[in-house]
Order: sequence, then structure tokens, then C-alpha cells
Amino acid sequence: MNESVTAAVLIIGDEILSGRTKDKNSGYIAEYMTAIGIDVREVRVVPDIEAEIVAALDALRHRYTYVFTTGGIGPTHDDITADSVAKAFGVSIDVDPRARELLLTRIAEKDLNEARLRMARIPAGADLIVNSVSAAPGFRIGNVYVMAGVPTIMHAMLDVVAPTLKTGARMLSETVRTNLREGDIGGPLGQIAKAHPETMIGSYPFLEDGRPNTQVVVRSRDAEKLAAAKSEVESMVAEVKAKLRQTA
Amino acid sequence: MNESVTAAVLIIGDEILSGRTKDKNSGYIAEYMTAIGIDVREVRVVPDIEAEIVAALDALRHRYTYVFTTGGIGPTHDDITADSVAKAFGVSIDVDPRARELLLTRIAEKDLNEARLRMARIPAGADLIVNSVSAAPGFRIGNVYVMAGVPTIMHAMLDVVAPTLKTGARMLSETVRTNLREGDIGGPLGQIAKAHPETMIGSYPFLEDGRPNTQVVVRSRDAEKLAAAKSEVESMVAEVKAKLRQTA
Repeated sequence: MNESVTAAVLIIGDEILSGRTKDKNSGYIAEYMTAIGIDVREVRVVPDIEAEIVAALDALRHRYTYVFTTGGIGPTHDDITADSVAKAFGVSIDVDPRARELLLTRIAEKDLNEARLRMARIPAGADLIVNSVSAAPGFRIGNVYVMAGVPTIMHAMLDVVAPTLKTGARMLSETVRTNLREGDIGGPLGQIAKAHPETMIGSYPFLEDGRPNTQVVVRSRDAEKLAAAKSEVESMVAEVKAKLRQTA
Repeated sequence: MNESVTAAVLIIGDEILSGRTKDKNSGYIAEYMTAIGIDVREVRVVPDIEAEIVAALDALRHRYTYVFTTGGIGPTHDDITADSVAKAFGVSIDVDPRARELLLTRIAEKDLNEARLRMARIPAGADLIVNSVSAAPGFRIGNVYVMAGVPTIMHAMLDVVAPTLKTGARMLSETVRTNLREGDIGGPLGQIAKAHPETMIGSYPFLEDGRPNTQVVVRSRDAEKLAAAKSEVESMVAEVKAKLRQTA
């Protein structure tokens, strides 16, 4: 199997932990990364507390190829992500002339008050992440990509970031809708999973009009191995159905 | 301020990290806990890998009053949460007669195959969490509550669990819609936040029909302190608007 490129997502914000705002950013980033061949291995949501942000950054950035953060880079007192990232990397932080210029492309100089200038505070040594939606940039330092929390802005930033990332072989995926209960296929599915170590086989129960059903998802970076495992799952599903008809 | 009761949410499942399934459980639990006076301080999403689940459980269960997990308690080979929890707590795990009885209330004995019996594997010393939707129970061991990943089942389990939890003083919350840009209020809002240390003041920008707007959320466990801070935010918003009209 090819070496995989990995990532973690770090969502920063009290409003997510209180349930007031429902996080959609981590799912968006996960789907985006999967599509370009990067494996998201972990997601964390932490509050607007510097020590928590620094601890999460340090846990994640040494472990995964990339870390993507969203939230906490606006102009108000609770926007402490940039300062926290600077602290985690042990670098200074100040108003960055490039970022200030970017703000001035959309904000009149007379309106560039102290609060708005907070959005130009960038850790020393970071590259800016510009975006087409808003003036305030995100930034990259080391393997950490710091993006906005507002989804439309984050999406625009991710479009800028994605072409610069190292990507692995894309994870391929096939879904088999079984029309069976999970408990009917659990045994033979486990056998198939064991026999196909280079595929990942997941079983996902769901209720449809109150009736239990199951989707089996087979994933692999190797198209042939994927096809072989999928075919075995399909045969197994047909066999289980035939058996159930006999005993019904 | 009253002593707070805290919680972490641990979402277990490859399908969340691949973006195939969008996690709604963490937001649901966060909102639920906030409403009953429990502070969710952290959310993590980890893959179906025992070592990852054990590491996350050990990081979270010693730090917060409660840990709520969802996912990985079904009948298939990728359902490894119960075994991982047993490992984290250093206890044995086997088919639990109480859980087996529960399964038999909805599953005919002839259908209780090895796969389905996996759903009766419960760590030694755990209490069962029954639910009104499905036969397979969740369980509690120590301060860890292990629930299903299917949202409707998880909701039913949470309704059973909630009345048994120690709760703190409820966090009260007021929202002020400013109709201003975040950068216009950042300075004075920071002053208000400093002057009201027993409230938490968050500023949340959003785009409405493409126009930037901001909601300020004031939170406190003390109703009077909340009202005082909210009132200052409203006065500040009115002042900023008056100033902006003058300079327009």
C-alpha cells in the first residue's frame, strides 16, 4: 500500500461545544481531504482557551502530516487562535504588513481600527492564505493551516490550500446496500474483512421508515482489491438472503 | 460561581473521519448537556482502531466528569467500542446475561447468532443503558456512557441516561443581534468582556445575503450578571451605530 498522507482537523470555538452552532466544517474538510487522497485520522473540538488550543495543536501537529484549524481568527477578544498558534510554535506574533495590505483592499484606512487590525496579527514566519470571500487572511505555519470558522470563507481558503498539499493515492470506496439487518451479515462479513486485509470494510446500520437496513462500505487504495472484496460482499449478501428465504 | 459539571464527547467511527457520514451526534449531545447544566468541554472523533479509542478514553475520562461515546456497538467486526472500553478500564468482557435477555425480547433465539451476540458483550461491572428503539443496550462503566451511533437510538439512550446525571447550575445565555460588522464592535466588546469576568462573551460573525453581520452571545450561570452584561452590550451597539451614522 502507498504511504498515506494524514491530517487532523481542529475546530476552535465555545459556540460549537455549547451546541449553539453545529459544526459543519469538520465534515466538509473530511470529505474534501478524502477526495484528494488525504486521510483525516482525528477531529477535535476545543474551547476558546489558549492552553487548550496549544495542547491540541501540539498533540496533533507532531502526529499527522497536516492539521487544519477553523475558527477564532476574527477581530474580537475571543479570537485567540493566531496567538495560540504562535505560542505553540514558540514564535512572535504581530501585525503583518502583508496582511494589513490585504485588509486595506476591502476596508477603508479610517475603519482599520485596533479590532480589525487583530485580523492582521500573523505568527512570524507564516504564509498567508488569501481567499475570495473576505479580506482577512488565514495562514500556514509549519504543517498547520489556520482558516476561518465561517463556512463560506473556510471553503474558499481550502480551495486555495488544497493544490499546495502533498496527496497520497486516493482512497477508493464502494457501497453495497444490503437490505438486510446488520446481525444477519455480521458473521460472514467479518470473515471477508479478515480475508481482505488491504481493504477496510465498514458496516453501517440505518433505519429507513423504521426498518433496520445496512450499508457495507468497502475501501481500498487498490482498485482490483476493492473490486474483489466488493464482489465477495455481494455474493455473501445474496447467499444470506437465499438462506433467510429458506428458513422463513 | 458554582462548581461546574463537565463532559467530553467521543465519536467513534471511520465513516465520520472519511466524511461519508456527517456527525450530528456531538452537536446533539452538546446542546442537550448545555440545557441540563453540564458543560461539554471537548469533542473528539477517532477511527475504529482499538489503540486510538483506548487512548482517547484515557485522556478524557480522567479529565471530565462524564464521557459520552457514540458508535461501534453493533454486531459487525468493525464494532470494537465495547472491547476497547473494557481494555481502557482493565476489566474482562463477555456476553452479559442481562444484555442477552434484552436481545431476546426482540430477536428470536434461532436468530441470535454469534454476530448478534456481540451486541451483548458488556465489560464486567458495567450497568446497561436500555432504550425504547432497539434491543441492543448501551452501557455505563465508571464515568463513561457508551451509546449507539444511529442518532434515533442514541437520542433514546440519552433520555434514559440524563436523569441519572449530576448537573450543575444551568448556563444561561442571551443573544444580541448587532446588525454590525464584527470589526466595528471588537474594541468596546473586548472592554465589556474584561469588565464582566463572570460572564462569557462570544462574538459570532455570519453572512446574510452576502452581508457581514454579527451576533454577540453572553453566557453566565448568574442571571443578574448576565442581564447586566447584556445591557452593556446593547448600549454599546447603539453607541457604535450612532457613531457610524455621524461619520457616514
